[in-house]
Amino acid sequence: MKTLIENIAQLVAVPAGPLAGDVFRRPPVVENAALLIEGERIAWFGVRKDTPPHGDADVIDARGGTVVPGLIDCHTHVVYAGSRENEFEQRIGGASYIEILEAGGGIKSSVRMLRAASEDELVAQSLPRVRRMLECGVTTIEAKSGYGLSPEHEFKTLRAIRRIADETPVEMIGTYLAAHTIPPEFEGRADAYLDQMLDKALLRRLVKEGLAEFADVFCERGAFNLEQSRRFLAACKEAALRPKIHSEQITRTGATAMACELGAVSADHLECINDADIEALKRSGTIPVVLPGCSFFLGSPVAPARKLIDADLPVALATDVNPGSCTIESLPLIMSMAATMLKMTPMESLVACTANAAAALNRADSLGAIAVGHQADLLILDVPNVNRWAYNVGVNPVAKVLKAGRVVVDRS
Amino acid sequence: MKTLIENIAQLVAVPAGPLAGDVFRRPPVVENAALLIEGERIAWFGVRKDTPPHGDADVIDARGGTVVPGLIDCHTHVVYAGSRENEFEQRIGGASYIEILEAGGGIKSSVRMLRAASEDELVAQSLPRVRRMLECGVTTIEAKSGYGLSPEHEFKTLRAIRRIADETPVEMIGTYLAAHTIPPEFEGRADAYLDQMLDKALLRRLVKEGLAEFADVFCERGAFNLEQSRRFLAACKEAALRPKIHSEQITRTGATAMACELGAVSADHLECINDADIEALKRSGTIPVVLPGCSFFLGSPVAPARKLIDADLPVALATDVNPGSCTIESLPLIMSMAATMLKMTPMESLVACTANAAAALNRADSLGAIAVGHQADLLILDVPNVNRWAYNVGVNPVAKVLKAGRVVVDRS
Repeated sequence: MKTLIENIAQLVAVPAGPLAGDVFRRPPVVENAALLIEGERIAWFGVRKDTPPHGDADVIDARGGTVVPGLIDCHTHVVYAGSRENEFEQRIGGASYIEILEAGGGIKSSVRMLRAASEDELVAQSLPRVRRMLECGVTTIEAKSGYGLSPEHEFKTLRAIRRIADETPVEMIGTYLAAHTIPPEFEGRADAYLDQMLDKALLRRLVKEGLAEFADVFCERGAFNLEQSRRFLAACKEAALRPKIHSEQITRTGATAMACELGAVSADHLECINDADIEALKRSGTIPVVLPGCSFFLGSPVAPARKLIDADLPVALATDVNPGSCTIESLPLIMSMAATMLKMTPMESLVACTANAAAALNRADSLGAIAVGHQADLLILDVPNVNRWAYNVGVNPVAKVLKAGRVVVDRS
Repeated sequence: MKTLIENIAQLVAVPAGPLAGDVFRRPPVVENAALLIEGERIAWFGVRKDTPPHGDADVIDARGGTVVPGLIDCHTHVVYAGSRENEFEQRIGGASYIEILEAGGGIKSSVRMLRAASEDELVAQSLPRVRRMLECGVTTIEAKSGYGLSPEHEFKTLRAIRRIADETPVEMIGTYLAAHTIPPEFEGRADAYLDQMLDKALLRRLVKEGLAEFADVFCERGAFNLEQSRRFLAACKEAALRPKIHSEQITRTGATAMACELGAVSADHLECINDADIEALKRSGTIPVVLPGCSFFLGSPVAPARKLIDADLPVALATDVNPGSCTIESLPLIMSMAATMLKMTPMESLVACTANAAAALNRADSLGAIAVGHQADLLILDVPNVNRWAYNVGVNPVAKVLKAGRVVVDRS
């Protein structure tokens, strides 16, 4: 089956990631363009007048809009139970993230609520969030466990993620974040907790059932120290779960450099990195992921995204949607925040949410680009250019979303 | 005609404004409530079991949600032509607001585009914005002229505002912002420009045709100085246009204290105010209006909202939606920004967008409150409390909007 998208004012032909330097800042744009899909993949794109013969292809009229790759949200905690608006109010009154955590709130209250929820309830609570994300143009979502913190509840979370993938057109990629915090029953015994969660049979089952592709750890005061983080990721890597890390969010721990050495696919947050960490990233293939929504939500410092980009690193951008430190589901709203808070241009943000986000998920060869042979995950936007999208903060210009060549959202 | 809203988990019974002190911080909340409307007005509200006999009233089921007054956006430039996303990109690259203005961009480019647009085009471009604002729960909008800057184009703008009121359920209130900037044909001749725009017959016609209720001036470097601002507002006041002012946004000019002396209904922006200005506000009936969306969009300092509230002033909150310094149309998104950027609780923001915004529009006796005899402008929200609304940043929980007792939006 063939589909031709025509009447495209601007086609942003983001190449396959990871992208750094000039092509990150200014990816190629084809004006008056068309794009041909065969089956699930992009078969051709270019100037409209050069459109190859396409027989009885279905034709989609982009109505003079902009076409970009489907967005990829490469760092989320979107599958959670309950709501923490009261902590939100406490924080406005001056309580810090760490203070709330140490008082038994924060992640710990989400752990209580997730453990109390059935798998069905977890799916029912999370599905509307994923559907709203899709409406904004997100076609692939990484989703972490990490509120279960026991074999039973971590598996329940990862099964819920897979069920959401089955019930929506969104591609969901699971990450085993068992090392998110130390559960109450292991208080003061972090290593014993890690022993339990690194049980070889357990990790084998995770991989065999296809529930997770990545492992992640929160290396931070009040969570796991550098040595524990290294041990967790190394053991997961041996079990074929590729490492990711929450590093340098609130304090500098050295986690970024450690993760780079370990061959992590991404190092995420980076609010407190220093120049040595940037050098470590440059020597590695680890993708730096910035999360400005979290800085917005907590009123905390931002990651030095401009410095990372200017160091020719392939920066990715994600929502970090979660119930405690950033409830923002909309990746386009995060693109607006990247503009005003991180001084990233809308075009840089687009690359950071497509090609580079795909690279942060080990999918650069199939997702996040407008390239022949790549999966046809595409957005048709009712705006004349990408700047307009980030500029009109909070207004959703998505006319159509295509996932693997098929129209899955039609708002036109 | 009677309507009963029942099954309300939380009714936030915001009293008539202006509100300051404890009632601002914590307005009364009725749990398990009901509310009775007769015609266009609120006839009764209270605990559900005390509901008075209501005969053949229509019944609306709030489904265990929250009911609050309809939101009032008391400072907008929502009627404009064209789009300025390229300046947005320039600003990310480091250009300042004043630099863009002095290079002929900024307000000046909106003036060119508005003058080139017909009244019909202006209505067509602005209507979708107003409709999206209504969907978010905004039932009353103040809208300023100020991109016309000639009698012809200022009248065109104010007529467009009135036509939008006719074509939507939203109550639109016009403000004559002829003193927004000096138009190119009067460059260096600000006083001659003001003479033209303060022509007595012109002002009389404005008032007689009901096109404007308020007058406003941008007192700032590159716009109008303190003396010119005073002259403009004093002349407008004599013609029965009540003064408002853009004061202390980028630099401190003394405009706030001047406007207080003049009996201005509101002083808006206030990013650079000092303690003497707060004292001047306290001695006056002038409502301080804060606009954090503008600080977010420009990456510039915020107004000291906490200090104003703690000085027992009746602070109001608005979007400032405009094409240059804040495109944010959603007042609930501004409430989230007020939480994270200004440390205002969601309940304080609700009061600031209802009772106090009504006071900033001289409508405290009829709008912005849940009080017997007040106009039944109400929102039914699919959230259990007001904190949840601001906490779920960017998610719209509006189930129904009522304007003057009639359901005008139904998303349930």
